[in-house]
Amino acid sequence: MRLESDSMGSVSVASDKYWGAQTERSIHHFPIGRSRFQWGAPMIRSMGILKKAAALANLALGELPESVALPIVRAADEVIAGQLDEHFPLVVFQTGSGTQSNMNANEVIANRAIEMLGGEMGSKTPIHPNDHVNRGQSSNDTFPTAMYMVVVGEVFETLLPGVTLLRNTLAAKAEAFADVVKVGRTHLQDATPITLGQEIGGWVEQLDYTLKGIEQNVQGLYDLAIGGTAVGTGLNAHPRFGDECARHIAELTGYPFRASSNKFFSLAAHDALVNTSAAIRTLAMALLKIANDVRWLASGPRCGIGEIDIPENEPGSSIMPGKVNPTQCEALTMVCTQVFGNDATVAFAGSQGNFQLNVYKPVMVHNVLESITLLAESCRAFNDHCAEGITPNLPRIEANLQKNLMLVTALNRHIGYDKAAIIAKTAHHEGKSLREVAHQLGFVSPDEFDRFVVPLDMTHS
Amino acid sequence: MRLESDSMGSVSVASDKYWGAQTERSIHHFPIGRSRFQWGAPMIRSMGILKKAAALANLALGELPESVALPIVRAADEVIAGQLDEHFPLVVFQTGSGTQSNMNANEVIANRAIEMLGGEMGSKTPIHPNDHVNRGQSSNDTFPTAMYMVVVGEVFETLLPGVTLLRNTLAAKAEAFADVVKVGRTHLQDATPITLGQEIGGWVEQLDYTLKGIEQNVQGLYDLAIGGTAVGTGLNAHPRFGDECARHIAELTGYPFRASSNKFFSLAAHDALVNTSAAIRTLAMALLKIANDVRWLASGPRCGIGEIDIPENEPGSSIMPGKVNPTQCEALTMVCTQVFGNDATVAFAGSQGNFQLNVYKPVMVHNVLESITLLAESCRAFNDHCAEGITPNLPRIEANLQKNLMLVTALNRHIGYDKAAIIAKTAHHEGKSLREVAHQLGFVSPDEFDRFVVPLDMTHS
Amino acid sequence: MRLESDSMGSVSVASDKYWGAQTERSIHHFPIGRSRFQWGAPMIRSMGILKKAAALANLALGELPESVALPIVRAADEVIAGQLDEHFPLVVFQTGSGTQSNMNANEVIANRAIEMLGGEMGSKTPIHPNDHVNRGQSSNDTFPTAMYMVVVGEVFETLLPGVTLLRNTLAAKAEAFADVVKVGRTHLQDATPITLGQEIGGWVEQLDYTLKGIEQNVQGLYDLAIGGTAVGTGLNAHPRFGDECARHIAELTGYPFRASSNKFFSLAAHDALVNTSAAIRTLAMALLKIANDVRWLASGPRCGIGEIDIPENEPGSSIMPGKVNPTQCEALTMVCTQVFGNDATVAFAGSQGNFQLNVYKPVMVHNVLESITLLAESCRAFNDHCAEGITPNLPRIEANLQKNLMLVTALNRHIGYDKAAIIAKTAHHEGKSLREVAHQLGFVSPDEFDRFVVPLDMTHS
Amino acid sequence: MRLESDSMGSVSVASDKYWGAQTERSIHHFPIGRSRFQWGAPMIRSMGILKKAAALANLALGELPESVALPIVRAADEVIAGQLDEHFPLVVFQTGSGTQSNMNANEVIANRAIEMLGGEMGSKTPIHPNDHVNRGQSSNDTFPTAMYMVVVGEVFETLLPGVTLLRNTLAAKAEAFADVVKVGRTHLQDATPITLGQEIGGWVEQLDYTLKGIEQNVQGLYDLAIGGTAVGTGLNAHPRFGDECARHIAELTGYPFRASSNKFFSLAAHDALVNTSAAIRTLAMALLKIANDVRWLASGPRCGIGEIDIPENEPGSSIMPGKVNPTQCEALTMVCTQVFGNDATVAFAGSQGNFQLNVYKPVMVHNVLESITLLAESCRAFNDHCAEGITPNLPRIEANLQKNLMLVTALNRHIGYDKAAIIAKTAHHEGKSLREVAHQLGFVSPDEFDRFVVPLDMTHS
Repeated sequence: MRLESDSMGSVSVASDKYWGAQTERSIHHFPIGRSRFQWGAPMIRSMGILKKAAALANLALGELPESVALPIVRAADEVIAGQLDEHFPLVVFQTGSGTQSNMNANEVIANRAIEMLGGEMGSKTPIHPNDHVNRGQSSNDTFPTAMYMVVVGEVFETLLPGVTLLRNTLAAKAEAFADVVKVGRTHLQDATPITLGQEIGGWVEQLDYTLKGIEQNVQGLYDLAIGGTAVGTGLNAHPRFGDECARHIAELTGYPFRASSNKFFSLAAHDALVNTSAAIRTLAMALLKIANDVRWLASGPRCGIGEIDIPENEPGSSIMPGKVNPTQCEALTMVCTQVFGNDATVAFAGSQGNFQLNVYKPVMVHNVLESITLLAESCRAFNDHCAEGITPNLPRIEANLQKNLMLVTALNRHIGYDKAAIIAKTAHHEGKSLREVAHQLGFVSPDEFDRFVVPLDMTHS
Repeated sequence: MRLESDSMGSVSVASDKYWGAQTERSIHHFPIGRSRFQWGAPMIRSMGILKKAAALANLALGELPESVALPIVRAADEVIAGQLDEHFPLVVFQTGSGTQSNMNANEVIANRAIEMLGGEMGSKTPIHPNDHVNRGQSSNDTFPTAMYMVVVGEVFETLLPGVTLLRNTLAAKAEAFADVVKVGRTHLQDATPITLGQEIGGWVEQLDYTLKGIEQNVQGLYDLAIGGTAVGTGLNAHPRFGDECARHIAELTGYPFRASSNKFFSLAAHDALVNTSAAIRTLAMALLKIANDVRWLASGPRCGIGEIDIPENEPGSSIMPGKVNPTQCEALTMVCTQVFGNDATVAFAGSQGNFQLNVYKPVMVHNVLESITLLAESCRAFNDHCAEGITPNLPRIEANLQKNLMLVTALNRHIGYDKAAIIAKTAHHEGKSLREVAHQLGFVSPDEFDRFVVPLDMTHS
Repeated sequence: MRLESDSMGSVSVASDKYWGAQTERSIHHFPIGRSRFQWGAPMIRSMGILKKAAALANLALGELPESVALPIVRAADEVIAGQLDEHFPLVVFQTGSGTQSNMNANEVIANRAIEMLGGEMGSKTPIHPNDHVNRGQSSNDTFPTAMYMVVVGEVFETLLPGVTLLRNTLAAKAEAFADVVKVGRTHLQDATPITLGQEIGGWVEQLDYTLKGIEQNVQGLYDLAIGGTAVGTGLNAHPRFGDECARHIAELTGYPFRASSNKFFSLAAHDALVNTSAAIRTLAMALLKIANDVRWLASGPRCGIGEIDIPENEPGSSIMPGKVNPTQCEALTMVCTQVFGNDATVAFAGSQGNFQLNVYKPVMVHNVLESITLLAESCRAFNDHCAEGITPNLPRIEANLQKNLMLVTALNRHIGYDKAAIIAKTAHHEGKSLREVAHQLGFVSPDEFDRFVVPLDMTHS
Repeated sequence: MRLESDSMGSVSVASDKYWGAQTERSIHHFPIGRSRFQWGAPMIRSMGILKKAAALANLALGELPESVALPIVRAADEVIAGQLDEHFPLVVFQTGSGTQSNMNANEVIANRAIEMLGGEMGSKTPIHPNDHVNRGQSSNDTFPTAMYMVVVGEVFETLLPGVTLLRNTLAAKAEAFADVVKVGRTHLQDATPITLGQEIGGWVEQLDYTLKGIEQNVQGLYDLAIGGTAVGTGLNAHPRFGDECARHIAELTGYPFRASSNKFFSLAAHDALVNTSAAIRTLAMALLKIANDVRWLASGPRCGIGEIDIPENEPGSSIMPGKVNPTQCEALTMVCTQVFGNDATVAFAGSQGNFQLNVYKPVMVHNVLESITLLAESCRAFNDHCAEGITPNLPRIEANLQKNLMLVTALNRHIGYDKAAIIAKTAHHEGKSLREVAHQLGFVSPDEFDRFVVPLDMTHS
């Protein structure tokens, strides 16, 4: 153990850990959700990039000498590389500004830099966690900066690739089944025909739309709080620090980050994160609909709709032998309900800011990250173990199509809605075919019927 | 027009209206949702009962002379009878304590009592809206008292009867169809058989459970804020006023209301209303499931499940002739999503109290009342125009049952899970019957099969 | 009364009403929320514009002769002008595709056109509600088309102007109070100084951001379902009908509407509406924060923060004389909780589509419209009766600023964080001024203190 | 590695793991949320108790011989003791009936029992995971049984003790500060006086109420699905198995569990879990209000309300030296927003059942358990590091009380509301004391004022 100190006094810290007094205090005071709510690698990495960018900016602006800035950069590089993950023990449920996680980064980087320079850990010399690592910064601007950085990265590097994998599989299916004519369904009732390609193509379009919505809403996250320091005024930061730091962040990450033009807003509210969460919720709602369609189309095998087959991955029942269930749909839709709830948390938390600060930052970013991870992972699993294996059950599709009463709609243009309705109702109640009834009622001859009612033509595909 | 005054000065009011200055100011300052968010009759009636009970309590306690109390009672009786509804013009979105609606009641009752006594409206003599009608009261205790009163009344007199009507219809159906054996479904996949009576009986039990939950949670609403006045201390009220007033309310309404034992809690939070809202949400969730089951079972008519028929109430499509849709299910499930959202509002609002007062009272009670009305009305419509007309499609049910592979489960006890699984899988992949495959594999003879696999027995009904 | 008929038979309709059999059936079958959930003028107007555009498109494409198309246009013009509002009696909770409201429009327009042509109402001659007014259409594409049209119109013509009014008032206040230096607050604790202009400017930026988010998300609503007819294939519509009809709609409304490039998606999901609802929710969350800030800053008058004064609009209490409350903040924040719940309904409903149709259309559009109206109206009321009257309480602001311990932060750059912390803590615990303690501890002289700690400079304004 | 098999074939499993083929398949197919969504010890323990109870019931009913039942009991005892936790690798996002977790328990217990009996793991002899361990059971009844068991246990053993600790601390504070008279606050505005004991007492009452609500709603969880097997009929279970198994569960856990009287409901819906989740949400809403009150009362230290002091646990700011923030309030309120979102997930998931099964079971129970854990842990932290250290700031309280204009309310009974209002308004606008103005206006003499206006008396404490 060694002694670490902060403005409240000194605290014992395990000698093999780089963190300091404030991190240790946080461990002590916030034993909440320890097993599940520790920050993950992406968030730690973002803090590392931010601290590196800050040191480079302070160096460029003459706020820190090379002898201080470069060791900070070297230590931050180790954070970025994931080599110091075990030195970030804190959880989501801490101070609502993320102060303790910001200090965790400051302390670890300071101590590691001191160590690299041959100094004494905990001495704050020659690298001070506040005066140097946190130079020109406050938790109030660094933490939301890291939040936005990590969400942007995770959206583009985790969420979009995961969903796009599924989207592309479905697009290929849509093309492959472009000629499979089948019954359409509205209100769960038989409707006019479509192709299976059109049906799946609708899912593809929905995914494309929701992904576009995410990309659009995520733009708001490019405006970083950095440079605002404690309350948005930028007190104690070099006037160009925010811009300079954001420039380095953009360079290090490859995303077009910039310093927000109004730091008061950037500290007090995270509406861009709420909007992003909502756009992700829409994706979840879309996936719920798609997964529901898949499992209903695959329902049966004999007493449901049964128009598609999906892979049989595992025994479905511990009591019913031979049963196979749409388990990938089930996992995915459960994830969707989780994302719905996560978004409710984000929106609620996002509304509770006061004055110059919203103090629900950690819970907001945590929920967005969790939604991203779960959706990406479940889309991949759904893709690999379900979507790729979708095949049409052609005999079933054809049988359903043939008996579909809504083929009568093709007659509207020839005999009008009212007469067509009489045909459909008569066929339904007498259990006969449309063709037979149309003739029997004297509305169209069998020949005309065959010319007017051509399911493939009705799909306009 | 006549002049009415309050502590801020005087205001012109239409001479044919009983309300006074504060009501008029509220009309002016809150032109929000005028067309849809005016208080309805039940809320106005509750205010009337409350004011009558308060006058009677003050009379009994010697706080008001008969000459003042009895005219108040007479005017309040007219409010209760709904004769003065047009004099309650205010909307939900006003002051968050409902002060203006409380003053609306005070003003209307004072002016009507003055009028009955031959005095001059607006003179506050001999009946003063604050000193007499509001005697021993504050908006902070009267409004939540009226809130709880109205919700209790609407739950028992509107919600429960409406849902119970549907519940009883379903119970009768469950009994009527107790012998109809059909395929069960889990994971949307064919499962072991049940009777249609069992299936519908599950819905009945679910409704019974959720109604019980509502009745249980509504108990918390019997504890009234009355007697707490401005902050919970009861300042300016006779020490026994709360109990006495609650006693009168109980007598006038027939519900076991009583004065809350902790008025600080009763003003600052409305957790009993949040719990009630949540229990109503559970009912909505249950109805959503039931309505979904109904429309899926009725799906088709030819390419879906089609095991039940529901009434054909209206043409289903403006383009597809003869189409009939499960429109009552659709209306009911839309109501369910509305109730879900209303509850989110109530819970959010319920969390936002500060110190001695929650100032989201009007929006909370409004949403609970709306949920009650919508659920009651849609359950009645669903009952009359859908549930009562449910009939089994016996040929379809029987055909589905016969081909159901999960009948194999009856063999588990005779040949074990593993062999039974082989039979089911073989039958599925070869498109054969279980009986045929069981014999072909040498596991059970056709005779044994017929003895072991008896769908009706499998339902244990 | 006269007889009206549809494919199910005939029905009596009041002779002074233009609607037909299907509207009458809907009135009978859906007595749900009659008093509060009837469609309002904007939705009816959108249906009118749509029907006019459809007739013009069918005329241009040779699908309807002038003798049929032009009377439809004339009748539709009366719908657009609001002259036939009383003939639209239906409510939100009906069939989930809005079929009955689509038929309501078809029936009213057909009958009114017949009347204008001297025909017999109910005869469907020479204008048939389905074959002519609904030509090339289905409820499944017209209703969502009208939904998107009405929301776009209401966003730009009701919501944005209402909020912008408030935004501009606040922007003017921010400028007016640009020199008022005051204590900043983070974690509800005193923090480094800002100007009142900066504080209010943060609100303005937040509104700007959320309005931009709404404008961005609303773009998705320009893609109309029209042309998809029953299931998305466009069956029975002229191949260019969707594009042509959308072109007319764009012309008639002034918004860049166009036919969606994937009608299957446009019927089965309304993700653009969900995204719009979510963006409106973010606005509500922002307004909640702003209204909370206003009432906290105005809290007191003597025992709170009290740094601003807001208008005294009405007596605040029925029991506490002279009390004035932030009632506009309360009405606005109640609206915000309502919008939050409305959005939960929209998202839930949006997730429940199946196959080729989402049958929660009416409840989705209703909730978005309600949120728009409430926010617009409450922003106007808040603007007129609160925001415009905000004034700083300068003596209070100055007194608070002087005693604020966080002015010490200005010393960080001169003596380091650790020593500055000692000064602040000592001053706090000994109840002294920073200046006095800084000198007493020998860290900075009074002169230096005065040079280093200049509140106005600390705001960087 | 060894080979394990199920009805789909054989799979390689690590030889040091007890699980079998189906668990291994699940690991492969559901790589979703691996790091955060694995089942915790309480859920595993519940599965162990259930399997033990099932074996004992089957033994008693003659369904299993001692030679099979007793080894199962012994292996289950090891599961209960937590000795086999590492053999439960599965996550929440799997099949929605929890089948794979049920099979995980069956496989682990079977293999461990086989091992204890000297058999070969994977041989299913002499203990078969389906035919013996799962005897008379299905995932569809066992998993919801385990769900209800674990939630009941966690509510009573984790949640209630954690919250009660805080409740008791607050109750002691309420008693300790029963004589501290202070300003009350409604609408954030100064109101008539209360004691600090009354203020805190209101929180205690709120906690008592919400805890009572949880205990009440949790009763529904005593009705277990066990005995329903696959679809609710109890197929393949001994007719008395459900009752007998539930009796053992009750005995082993000490809670009054019993077999549900309608198993169809028990499999298809989990409304009791939704109600429990909602009651926990109400607790979270209550804690949010309480934590908000604490941080506002502690706001300042100099420019806020500042009427109470709370412990200074850690440096509050990385940039503002000496700042101390209400971090425990922040962690607790973040937890409350998380619980709010978790409940939204539970309710949504609870509504999505179809026919005989709700397939969102795992996500429902997971969210309830997470809410329980987070609330219990954050209440403990809040208690230890905040509530216990609450002390009144007496000088501030007294100063605020003296200048509070709402003391005027005590004059209502003597001079009427209208005159009292004039006094308050005059004092406010002229910045004078009530006493001075009351005299100046000639309404009451200073002597009378002192007799009428006694803050302590006004609290009725």
